[in-house]
Parts: sequence; structure tokens; C-alpha cells
Amino acid sequence: MVVISDSDMRDRGVPAITYSLRGLCALEVSLKTANTTDLHSGMFGGGGQNANHLLVQLLSTLHDANGKVNVDHFYDEVLELTEFEKEQIKALGFDEEKLKKSLGLTELTGGETNYPYPEKISSRPTLELNGIWGGFQGEGTKTVIPNEAPGKITCRLVNNQNPEKIQGLIKKYLEEQAPKGCTVKVTLQDTGNPFLTPIDHMMIQKAAEAYEQVYGASPVYKREGGSIPIVLDFNHTLNTPVVLMGFGLPDENLHAPNEHFNLENFDKGSLTICSFLERV
Amino acid sequence: MVVISDSDMRDRGVPAITYSLRGLCALEVSLKTANTTDLHSGMFGGGGQNANHLLVQLLSTLHDANGKVNVDHFYDEVLELTEFEKEQIKALGFDEEKLKKSLGLTELTGGETNYPYPEKISSRPTLELNGIWGGFQGEGTKTVIPNEAPGKITCRLVNNQNPEKIQGLIKKYLEEQAPKGCTVKVTLQDTGNPFLTPIDHMMIQKAAEAYEQVYGASPVYKREGGSIPIVLDFNHTLNTPVVLMGFGLPDENLHAPNEHFNLENFDKGSLTICSFLERV
Repeated sequence: MVVISDSDMRDRGVPAITYSLRGLCALEVSLKTANTTDLHSGMFGGGGQNANHLLVQLLSTLHDANGKVNVDHFYDEVLELTEFEKEQIKALGFDEEKLKKSLGLTELTGGETNYPYPEKISSRPTLELNGIWGGFQGEGTKTVIPNEAPGKITCRLVNNQNPEKIQGLIKKYLEEQAPKGCTVKVTLQDTGNPFLTPIDHMMIQKAAEAYEQVYGASPVYKREGGSIPIVLDFNHTLNTPVVLMGFGLPDENLHAPNEHFNLENFDKGSLTICSFLERV
Repeated sequence: MVVISDSDMRDRGVPAITYSLRGLCALEVSLKTANTTDLHSGMFGGGGQNANHLLVQLLSTLHDANGKVNVDHFYDEVLELTEFEKEQIKALGFDEEKLKKSLGLTELTGGETNYPYPEKISSRPTLELNGIWGGFQGEGTKTVIPNEAPGKITCRLVNNQNPEKIQGLIKKYLEEQAPKGCTVKVTLQDTGNPFLTPIDHMMIQKAAEAYEQVYGASPVYKREGGSIPIVLDFNHTLNTPVVLMGFGLPDENLHAPNEHFNLENFDKGSLTICSFLERV
């Protein structure tokens, strides 16, 4: 077993065990039309194909009207949440108005419309267009018909998706759906496995008992939407369960100016780890 | 009447009268989601909306499956070609294989599928995405969810389209079709009127007679797909016909190194202009 303290508590006096992190895979797509150069719309406008048009056309098909990823077999290995997990997520609470206000959004319309927001950002896989570009980006106007338009894609992945397999599915999709009159080249980039130690795993339960003893409160169980690469590596390379027992508080300015750490949790954290080690 | 020599002949001994130029209008579209900053896909991926997704979704609707511009009333004022004009275009000849080879294209798939290539680039209006961008464009991977994605659009316009009216139609379309969860701001940029002096206009016919007298050959009639702003200004500000009588040859490296001008056309051009002035 590996124990890592790089996650946070729910609140002061409310410990949390993070039992899942999302994995990742990344791709770059390069779409090319004329292999010589950009074209001028005065000479070719309305006749020569425009790489921006074709990229927009291709990428707009990656999600359906419900925000589901349109790539065949993308969801095949996705573990659905158990009822207990859904209850845990509900118990964590979610203040939509507060979140929208903090982000400056009038609506939250990302991702799959059929899932509640807290599930979308933690237990569901995603496909994001992190970058697109083609043609002229300066001030004013240029009547250029670009011959090349690239895009960058990353997916957040969940158990039991395999990052390399998902990369392959997306590459295949983009190549097969390439519009007429262009070539689409897909480059595979980084991957990282998703991580999950089941809540009912003995090591998670021992950690819960240790928290209860020291804090006098049961921990909440959380899935994080991000990735901590070293956790994924320990989990998959050593083939051992990983238990994330973190003692930071959400308002301690993690990795930012004036980062700090509550002394109560320094003491109680040490005691919790001791109790945990005794129990296992 | 205004006479301008800024166009070219068809070939040595084959004079040409350019009787139409396309106009232009330009717009910039700026799509914004969260008004604070980009988001991180580890925290918000699958929940917070992605400006790239929404831009791609919006712009992909600007053309239908036949390459027609999807904006209501876009084509309302477009003058269709006369039978004589279609014959003239056919007579000019078009070597598709040669063009594809010179551009490095395997197919010519731009614009409206229902029109021949030479008409698409000269007598049909267009809507081009000259620039799109959003999010990360560097090397490697960033798991950013961009909050802003702009695009640049220009249209080549033909008689009797009004550039300001077309700008208004496109702006209205983009604002009305703005996806949920974002704001779309459209900025109007340059405009230029299309230009057309009908082939049967007396001044064009006098020019044709002058060419016939000096060159012993009837001129061909051409539409150009580009714009010469000063021509449009003379035509619309002075409200006079404009006659484009150019004497350059296509292989004289116009505006490029080693630009040159055939002495035969210097002499014959002078005579043609004299003959034309006498006739009018």
C-alpha cells in the first residue's frame, strides 16, 4: 500500500479521503489543404477550400447535442457510480449559484447534459478542445484562406478507461471523418492512467477508522477531477492500492502566495497517520 | 466615365475587358464564456463550458452541406449571370488539373458545390473564416478550458449586394445563434462595394471597338474575384461607369521581382486608348 498526503479535507473538522483521480490523454490534430501556402480570397475565395472551415466542421462533430463524446466505444469501459458514491457526492453539497458567480458565468452548460455537475467534473470522462487556431489573428482584416488549421485535444479519463486505447479511438475517428479536400494528421501526446481505490477497500476503511478516532468524525469520500501523475504511477506500476490522506484545508492558498497550514491539522494529522499505521 | 489601366490581357494578342470586381465586408466575432479567466480541466473539465467548443459549434453552421452561406437573405440581391456571361466564362477555359497541381490540392472542394469553379471565384459571393483561435497553441499539452475564442470573417460580395447590409445580416445571425452559456460580440470592420459595368454598356462597347481596330481581335470579358478599392470608390462616389482597359500580360510578374511590360502593348495600348477617346 502507498499513502500520500497531497489532497485536502472537506472543511475544518471534516476529514476527507480522495479515492479516485481522473487520468488523461492528449492529441494534436493538424488539418492541411493546399500543401504550398495560404491562398488569397480575391483569387480563390469561393473555390479553394479553407482549412478553418474544414477544422470547424470536423471538430464540431466530436460531441453530440447532449454533450456526449461522439467517438465510438469512448464510454465502453467507464465504471458507473454506485448508489453509495452518488449519496456521498450529494452529501458533499453543491452550490451552483455560488460557482457561477465566482466564474462569472450565467449558466453551466459544459459536458454531458444528463449528469449532475459534481459527477460531470469528477466521475465522467471528457474531451476538451484546449486549442484551435488557423489563419490571421492580428488586428484588422486579412483576406487569407488558410491552408492549415491545428487543434489540441485532451481527455480526462476515469476507471477503467485505458488512455492509449482512447487515444487510438479518437485518432481513428478524426482520420475517418476527415472532410474531403484535406489531410488530417493526428499526433499522440501525453497519457496518464485514471486511479481508483474502491471505498470498501480494507485500506480505505482503516484510514476512515483512524480519522474517526482522532477527529471524532467520519471522513467524506471524494473523487477529484484532476490527475496527480505520481499517484497513477504508484498505483499502476507497483500494482498496489493507494490511500490519499490529506490534511490541508480548502482555503489555505494551495501553491499560491501566502500558502499556509493549520497547526491543529499538523497535530491531528500526525496522530491520524499513527493510528492508521497501527491498524494496518 | 472613368478609365483605369490596372487589369491584364488574356494573352499576347488577346485583349480583355474586366467588367466586374467583387466587393468585401469584414467582421470579427468574439465569443466569451466565464468572464474571469480560463479554467483548468482538472477542476472544471466536463462541467464548465469551453469557448472553443462553442465557437466551433457556432461557426460550423455558417455554411450548409452544399457550401451555401446559411445566413438568411445573404443571396437576396445577387445578380445571376446572363447566358452571354456564362459563355464568356466557358470561353476563357479552365484547367482544373493544372490548378490543383499548382496549389498542391487533390480536390477543389471550396464554396458552393452547385456552381462551376470559374463562377465560384468571380461571380458568386463568399463567406470565409480568415482566422480562428482559442486556448493553447504552444508545443505540447495544456489542459486549459479557454474562456474566449475569437474568429475573423470576410465576405467577397457581388452586385447588387450591399456590404453594410450583409454585415448586419451576419451579425444578426451570429448573435441569434449564439450557443447557451456564452456571449457573442460581433465587431464590424472594413467594407467595399462590388463593381460592375454591364458588358452591353455603351462605354464597354466603344472600348471593344477600339481593341478590335488596333489588335484585330475582339476582347474577352472577365470578372475578377478580387477588389480594387479605388475602382469601387470612383464607381460609387462619382456614380459613373468605369472601364478597365489593361494592357499587361499574365506572365509579366505583376508587383513581383523582374516585373516588365511588353513594348508591343505599350504602342498598341496607346493607340487603343486614342481610338477609344475618339469614339466616345
